[in-house]
Amino acid sequence: MNQKHLKKQNPPDKPNLLLSHLQLGTRDYNPKQMAIREKVFNTIISCFKRHGAETIDTPVFELKETLTGKYGEDSKLIYDLKDQGGELLSLRYDLTVPFARYLAMNKITNIKRYHIAKVYRRDNPAMTRGRYREFYQCDFDIAGQYDAMIPDAECLKIVHEILSELQLGEFCIKVNDRRILDGMFAVCGVPDEKFRTICSTVDKLDKMSWEDVKKEMVNEKGLSEEAADQIGEYVSMRGGMDLAERLLQDQKMCQNKQACAGLSDIKLLFSYLQLFQVTDKVVFDLSLARGLDYYTGVIYEAVLTQAGLPPLESAGVGSVAGGGRYDGLVGMFDPKGRKVPCVGVSIGIERIFSIMEQKASAEKVRTTEVQVMVASAQKNLLEERLRLVTELWSAGIKAEVMYKKNPKLLSQLQHCEEGGVPLVAILGEQELKDGVVKLRVVSTREEVDISRADLIAEIKRRTSEA
Amino acid sequence: MNQKHLKKQNPPDKPNLLLSHLQLGTRDYNPKQMAIREKVFNTIISCFKRHGAETIDTPVFELKETLTGKYGEDSKLIYDLKDQGGELLSLRYDLTVPFARYLAMNKITNIKRYHIAKVYRRDNPAMTRGRYREFYQCDFDIAGQYDAMIPDAECLKIVHEILSELQLGEFCIKVNDRRILDGMFAVCGVPDEKFRTICSTVDKLDKMSWEDVKKEMVNEKGLSEEAADQIGEYVSMRGGMDLAERLLQDQKMCQNKQACAGLSDIKLLFSYLQLFQVTDKVVFDLSLARGLDYYTGVIYEAVLTQAGLPPLESAGVGSVAGGGRYDGLVGMFDPKGRKVPCVGVSIGIERIFSIMEQKASAEKVRTTEVQVMVASAQKNLLEERLRLVTELWSAGIKAEVMYKKNPKLLSQLQHCEEGGVPLVAILGEQELKDGVVKLRVVSTREEVDISRADLIAEIKRRTSEA
Repeated sequence: MNQKHLKKQNPPDKPNLLLSHLQLGTRDYNPKQMAIREKVFNTIISCFKRHGAETIDTPVFELKETLTGKYGEDSKLIYDLKDQGGELLSLRYDLTVPFARYLAMNKITNIKRYHIAKVYRRDNPAMTRGRYREFYQCDFDIAGQYDAMIPDAECLKIVHEILSELQLGEFCIKVNDRRILDGMFAVCGVPDEKFRTICSTVDKLDKMSWEDVKKEMVNEKGLSEEAADQIGEYVSMRGGMDLAERLLQDQKMCQNKQACAGLSDIKLLFSYLQLFQVTDKVVFDLSLARGLDYYTGVIYEAVLTQAGLPPLESAGVGSVAGGGRYDGLVGMFDPKGRKVPCVGVSIGIERIFSIMEQKASAEKVRTTEVQVMVASAQKNLLEERLRLVTELWSAGIKAEVMYKKNPKLLSQLQHCEEGGVPLVAILGEQELKDGVVKLRVVSTREEVDISRADLIAEIKRRTSEA
Repeated sequence: MNQKHLKKQNPPDKPNLLLSHLQLGTRDYNPKQMAIREKVFNTIISCFKRHGAETIDTPVFELKETLTGKYGEDSKLIYDLKDQGGELLSLRYDLTVPFARYLAMNKITNIKRYHIAKVYRRDNPAMTRGRYREFYQCDFDIAGQYDAMIPDAECLKIVHEILSELQLGEFCIKVNDRRILDGMFAVCGVPDEKFRTICSTVDKLDKMSWEDVKKEMVNEKGLSEEAADQIGEYVSMRGGMDLAERLLQDQKMCQNKQACAGLSDIKLLFSYLQLFQVTDKVVFDLSLARGLDYYTGVIYEAVLTQAGLPPLESAGVGSVAGGGRYDGLVGMFDPKGRKVPCVGVSIGIERIFSIMEQKASAEKVRTTEVQVMVASAQKNLLEERLRLVTELWSAGIKAEVMYKKNPKLLSQLQHCEEGGVPLVAILGEQELKDGVVKLRVVSTREEVDISRADLIAEIKRRTSEA
């Protein structure tokens, strides 16, 4: 601890390491945040398991070429590893592409799996709104050749269950279909080669006004005013099964084969959603586009709609889940292009954490599960404490001692009050002579002498009640 | 599915993506492996929680300079991220350095925490022996200014509990102290500046014979024969508290202050280990060195010793846990060099997975927790199936349906047998008329009619038994 030693620890070439030594857009989770995170994960995993999902894991980095050409304009946000003399590697951008790579590599043609893991994007972080460069995704996907819309409907059912159970307030699940969007673009006179880029612009409707979206279509993307106006009419439409029926009668839409297939599927989807009892929250919304290239059918996105929620800077930033059908992605990794139809959903867990954290900010959240602290009232009882705590551990009780030879009773009790430890087993000379332990209930300060033989049962009884 | 479509999926510039598209040394975990992994994690986390630990998480990448100068010769194995116009980043190499950075950054002076996460090393992978480039570490550490050897002893207690509970067979925990090693080098006549490099050579004793180690010391590192021979005598010693007492009387060792401090602490440590009832597995072994630079006191390593275990290429490769005291590391991240004494242990989970996987290779491991499949015996009952499964989900029952309009009863039953689903709730015209469901027990093929009102209770009763 002398000056000489300190100097050794801080070599002159970096005398002043900054305190905030993390990359912008990443963060540590402290124990309280972890306790909240664990609770949220447990809710989500329980739901996935209730729906019969298995789980898999994939490496955090993939070969660079695996990710190439899958994310459209967002590909620039991929983190690459330095070429240190080996294959070119990138950090995964989502869990969907690694899943598709996994299916193709292992020739799996049907599976229902969830995957909870971190993904990486070199995006502009907006940490107060829960947007990070490293963040968790919680994905549930169903792969396999099945009858139309049954797995798709189950994905929406899962979103409904999770958002309801987490009690995040009012929410709404928007649904659309890539085929309807493409059909709509076709009948509005958008040239084929502009479908994807116009789709990207429509995707901004949750952040931009129609006027600005139209401007981008006409001025930047070179669409005709007339086509843009026609799109404008469609993308203002929202409804339920009735809207799908109405559009099937629409004189322009009904001429487009793709649009008709999409609209019929939306009708079928709603019929299953009725059986699943989730139509109260689901809206067929023609403005929903979603940016990613790989979707081929139904797409959806859940947004929180309750007013007064934490920093939702502007409308639409409340997105907490999204997904859709991607029937072509697995085939891109198969040497023979064999397709495996897939549909899935990703829960936007970081935003949910932000909300849960805000909610819990005033509350005391326990960060350990300790049931009892083994304490001493007098000096020279370390050995006795270690003996007793060993007994408790053997019985499966969560217990701790302070790592001091002679801790003060007060500081042992304070530790329990701060950490929410419900019980203290206090040893003293008298108790040792009498073969008892003084068991103290921290909340009420009640103290009772319990014989050593009954102690374990008594601790279990009292902490299972809580 | 037509040829034209397939061509679109497989653009001409990469017609033949390889099937094994993962970096060497990384791997996917399939559902069976995940089920085993979950079981192992649960055992380890339960133990950490029983000892009162909180948990934290840190980002997968750290600023490059955070990792610089912490790992000695192993620094060359660090994965760097590509400089894409931002700070220089590296993937974490272990969980200890990020933990120290976290403590310093948040000015935390005492905490007991565990952290389970992946770390990255550009090492030569040896996957059959459970050595990967991406692998999990399970770390438990105690930071704080406490009385000597109490937290250190608890770390060893934890290793003992975990390895016993996982039933990996016989094991042994070797203990030594950096101060004893340094003192030994000093009294054997090793020049100060060669301590670390000679220590690295001693560390190879678990893989190399003494003759080869001596050769490296003398020929490569320029040590005198005489000094090497003296080291050779010491590093062949192993024992318990008695050995520490004997060395405290050793005429050379007792002259070295550092060595004496280390030996007294080993004595104290063993007295606590006796109270914790773990001395049966702990050996004081003067050949234990451990490679990392940051250790300052007690060091330890657990090895599996049972013969006939899966590919333990040579002795010492059976290491499944390791750790020690590192009192200087946190100070390296603090602008004022303030120290926070730390001691911890890392469980070598990948090797444990390999062993558990091998053990389970013949067994059938369930990968889902589905309690019941909702099936139909006739056609046109999809709606009824969806209605019933919705009811079951609402009641918290893990249930599934096949995603087909008219699945064959046989294929529904087969799915249950393959996946270990214990019950099938079968709907048919007659059952619907009678207001019952035919509940089939998959293992016995027994079938009973249960009224719809009693179904949920009956499923819960039957699956809680199992």
